[in-house]
Amino acid sequence: MVFDEAMAQNAAVQYCDDQGDEQGLIQSFVQVCNFLYDNQDRLSWRSRTNIPSVQTDEGLRLLAKKYYSAYRRSDFPIRAGTIPDDMVSIVMVEAFGYSKEASDRIKVEHQEAMVAENCVGALLERYLDSVLRPNGWHWCCGSFVKAIDFIRRDQNNKWLVLQIKNRDNSENSSSSAIRTGTTIQKWFRSLSRTGRTNWDNVPPLMQGFNLSEQGFIDFARAYLAKEKAKMTI
Amino acid sequence: MVFDEAMAQNAAVQYCDDQGDEQGLIQSFVQVCNFLYDNQDRLSWRSRTNIPSVQTDEGLRLLAKKYYSAYRRSDFPIRAGTIPDDMVSIVMVEAFGYSKEASDRIKVEHQEAMVAENCVGALLERYLDSVLRPNGWHWCCGSFVKAIDFIRRDQNNKWLVLQIKNRDNSENSSSSAIRTGTTIQKWFRSLSRTGRTNWDNVPPLMQGFNLSEQGFIDFARAYLAKEKAKMTI
Repeated sequence: MVFDEAMAQNAAVQYCDDQGDEQGLIQSFVQVCNFLYDNQDRLSWRSRTNIPSVQTDEGLRLLAKKYYSAYRRSDFPIRAGTIPDDMVSIVMVEAFGYSKEASDRIKVEHQEAMVAENCVGALLERYLDSVLRPNGWHWCCGSFVKAIDFIRRDQNNKWLVLQIKNRDNSENSSSSAIRTGTTIQKWFRSLSRTGRTNWDNVPPLMQGFNLSEQGFIDFARAYLAKEKAKMTI
Repeated sequence: MVFDEAMAQNAAVQYCDDQGDEQGLIQSFVQVCNFLYDNQDRLSWRSRTNIPSVQTDEGLRLLAKKYYSAYRRSDFPIRAGTIPDDMVSIVMVEAFGYSKEASDRIKVEHQEAMVAENCVGALLERYLDSVLRPNGWHWCCGSFVKAIDFIRRDQNNKWLVLQIKNRDNSENSSSSAIRTGTTIQKWFRSLSRTGRTNWDNVPPLMQGFNLSEQGFIDFARAYLAKEKAKMTI
């Protein structure tokens, strides 16, 4: 039995308007499902019941819905709705000598910095997708492929697999062996010890596309400006 | 076969000076090892080789060394040696409208707030130990008991098991069933949605010892002042 690409494509069509920047996303979704067909243990699904199968129309629709929702969800950072822990401010005062007033300001800014950090990780994937998608890579958007961010096939039809991290000290995934015998190639954008970026060391598979820190900054600024404009409408 | 308490006690004596606030720690170490003897799957050890056994003198010494090192290690927050990611500052400017100067200040304060957060979690365990130890509880210090922070036996000699979190949205452990058939009782100190503390809802096992937020604050201030004084000597 082989993977039914036409069925996956039909599922994607239900959710894709295939306009603007969604060009090529149908093909990416189909290949992500194809990869999951070959590596079923790579599916990550929160609910223990109703786990989608890439061999049924119903399963593919569930996955397509998640894929496109994640793609369209804004990654503009939203201030947290939680109330900061006062004890953190007490430690800031006692340990680092901040005034009560400064520690109150810091607790708000600290929350914003945390959501900004998450935003950087999300924007990094979006930037890479914007450059890599026209070059044959498929983004594993929607967080249902375990520990893998981008896939493509090589000339021998074997899967090539990339995992992206924003920093060398980001939490990393435990397993790197996958069933097809390929290993996950990992790349991180920045070095926590020096603050330097790592664009000079992208794996061979990602080379030749002019990926750069300045490209990332420009992409991020444009994305945030666009999303901000949407919010103020 | 039963657990050899005398052998565990001998191992602890090698590392304990049994002065000042280490009173009772030998007994706590012995009981933590006794618990691991009954629940061997609860041992958490970073290295895959040389996993300590609570049935050998060598294993018990390894555990005792880790137990006492962790107890004596200062939890005073230390500024991180890492360089903040400039991209986070760019997002702070673009998304929240901070000036470049403000975002530079925030990135330092944000790092301090992160280490202060970790410190709060560590001090919470120390505070609970200071109150619960004289009341028959044993602190699982040293992070080698998986997802469990305090243990004791009930009148029927069954293990009672506590897991402590600083916040309701702290990362939580996956498994709560343990081999002896008891379940882990969980308690968190603060509610992220309201900012309120949760001392009125300590589990029955922890009641009657006057645990309170004010007690925690007083303990934390005294601890930090003492550790700060040590550093300036």
